Amino acid sequence: MDSGRFGTDVYAQRVRAATAAAAEAGLAGLVITPGYDLRYLVGSRAQTFERLTALVLPTGIGQERSDRGTGVVEPTVVVPRMELASLKESAITEIGLAVRDWVDGDDPYQLVADALGGGVAAVTDAMPALHLLPLADVLGVVPVLATEVLRRLRMIKDSAEIEALRAAGAAIDRVHARVPELLVPGRTEADVAADIAEAIVAEGHSEVAFITVGSGPNGANPHHECSDRVLRAGDVVVVDIGGPYEPGYNSDSTRTYSLGEPNAEVARRYSALQQAQQAAVAAVRPGVTAAQVDAAARDVLAAEGLAEAFMHRTGHGIGLSVHEEPYIVAGNDLALEEGMAFSVEPGIYFPGEWGARIEDIVIVTGDGADAVNRRPHELAVVPIG
Amino acid sequence: MDSGRFGTDVYAQRVRAATAAAAEAGLAGLVITPGYDLRYLVGSRAQTFERLTALVLPTGIGQERSDRGTGVVEPTVVVPRMELASLKESAITEIGLAVRDWVDGDDPYQLVADALGGGVAAVTDAMPALHLLPLADVLGVVPVLATEVLRRLRMIKDSAEIEALRAAGAAIDRVHARVPELLVPGRTEADVAADIAEAIVAEGHSEVAFITVGSGPNGANPHHECSDRVLRAGDVVVVDIGGPYEPGYNSDSTRTYSLGEPNAEVARRYSALQQAQQAAVAAVRPGVTAAQVDAAARDVLAAEGLAEAFMHRTGHGIGLSVHEEPYIVAGNDLALEEGMAFSVEPGIYFPGEWGARIEDIVIVTGDGADAVNRRPHELAVVPIG
Repeated sequence: MDSGRFGTDVYAQRVRAATAAAAEAGLAGLVITPGYDLRYLVGSRAQTFERLTALVLPTGIGQERSDRGTGVVEPTVVVPRMELASLKESAITEIGLAVRDWVDGDDPYQLVADALGGGVAAVTDAMPALHLLPLADVLGVVPVLATEVLRRLRMIKDSAEIEALRAAGAAIDRVHARVPELLVPGRTEADVAADIAEAIVAEGHSEVAFITVGSGPNGANPHHECSDRVLRAGDVVVVDIGGPYEPGYNSDSTRTYSLGEPNAEVARRYSALQQAQQAAVAAVRPGVTAAQVDAAARDVLAAEGLAEAFMHRTGHGIGLSVHEEPYIVAGNDLALEEGMAFSVEPGIYFPGEWGARIEDIVIVTGDGADAVNRRPHELAVVPIG
Repeated sequence: MDSGRFGTDVYAQRVRAATAAAAEAGLAGLVITPGYDLRYLVGSRAQTFERLTALVLPTGIGQERSDRGTGVVEPTVVVPRMELASLKESAITEIGLAVRDWVDGDDPYQLVADALGGGVAAVTDAMPALHLLPLADVLGVVPVLATEVLRRLRMIKDSAEIEALRAAGAAIDRVHARVPELLVPGRTEADVAADIAEAIVAEGHSEVAFITVGSGPNGANPHHECSDRVLRAGDVVVVDIGGPYEPGYNSDSTRTYSLGEPNAEVARRYSALQQAQQAAVAAVRPGVTAAQVDAAARDVLAAEGLAEAFMHRTGHGIGLSVHEEPYIVAGNDLALEEGMAFSVEPGIYFPGEWGARIEDIVIVTGDGADAVNRRPHELAVVPIG
């Protein structure tokens, strides 16, 4: 089940770096329940159950402050005994973590507290209230989010991660190359989505994460998935697709198609969108803020009177999860750094009429941006009978 | 996407009952993010995103206590504007909830606080730390788990839910009926699991939730899924399978198979397991505690010297989620009530050798228990060539 992962050294390094970042932030340590952070740190794809599984990375700060302190803290996995065998099939033991197993009736939150020693812990953003609230009770202090501590690690992709994102991007490009032949008037959005789902897997993704086929007025809803609406000549169709590609990094790409030649207004507005997307990508380089990239797209559309039509942020980070930091949004003063990966996907939406979006995943390079997606950005005109 | 759900009246009634239960507990209200609680209360299958979607059911208690109180509180959905169109396709507006939409840059946690008025809120156990910690900051008081407030509603199934569980149970019984022909020496566990996955869907489930095929020593790990281990004559094989069946209620049933006649020790120990499972089911009736049902199974095994071999709880509630309250476990003094639904699944595990488990889902009736699964409980001997 833990088929696709990097080598053990990668995870050992990530655990050390995360612990160091937590220490620098003055925290007692990190508490990571199943989810993307756990997968990032130790390569485990454990699922969340009602029984607590948690990676505890103490910094020693809690131990120093605790009157219960009796020894050296060490990275620990707290795990239900019945999950122990599955755990040992994963990489967790290879990187030398202590294992504290528990059975029904034990208090796993106390095991976490013992491993931390005391002080303020930071928890993964995925930790459910089911575990977070009892843990806060036992710790006697409400934890903080580990997002700040882990974000820089998670945001800046190493070369293996970038290679994985490129492979995923090439795979979804191959799917988009097959989309025009599927967009036949008379077929439903659901028909097309079913074919796209097959293509996503056929082109090497381990599964389908999402498929939007938004035709005509449905294209004006950015989170429309698909419906039984029948495609018609003249429709503008938004196709937003992606999924994880082993070892688990995601693709995510949107192209917009026109069934037959678009009318003059569609062509004009789409052209503004294309310029907006290009302007945002051109703005990307180390030191520029996420908000500035968002503004670059927004300013182009505003100049064309389309400010109201673009009501979502310009992009989101991507990696093991489809949506992660950095978010390319107004107000985010995060300075971009080499190795960050995110979508640049402005869209324009006209309720009841049509919508369009162009989305590439880009990697921040030393002096600009490099897109992992290479399909043309023009409105893709599908010839009709 | 919201295909399978009950009628609008069902959800209106559930929202009223949940609000009343929260008021009775002295809470300002409930805050429910996407997950099974949201699906239970309003029939929405919304997915969790990093943007907050929350159903807020105020009791009025917070409003009375708040110096910001300016009017009548009302059930409210806080939703990102870009999700609004999808939301309106669901049943949420039909049951008369106020909608407060927000855009990137707004503070959705303040919208939740405004809808509550003040006081202590209870949150769904699925709420991620990502939302819970900022919400606690804005509220100025750490929420509590809504589990206690919602558990009785969620635990006691109405007639429509019981019918749904019976349909799911009959479907998984049909799959188990097909398992013997798949258990052929020379095939791998993974081969068998792939065929079972097809059968689960072919018998009407909307998807596969889990498949365990634990042969020989793998059967001694209760959470083993499947591997490339090749089946051999003489293997004991644990097969634990299930999935959701529209409108979304789950099946979950385990049977144990023997490839050829079992040896005397396996037969003797399995017989004790069968008696333990039967004793637990026989113990079920209104007023008996969950712990007493657990003890009924455990006592039988202990009397046979198998106490150590049974290291997990006897069962778990089931409904929209596979694992939910009531948990049939030592220490749980919850008194059973008519309409509760849970698994009764003692198991015995001999590391490095073999394991066995028998699992039915039962419904608590006026004076006992009624199983939704009807396959024989005997060790199923598969003839080998």
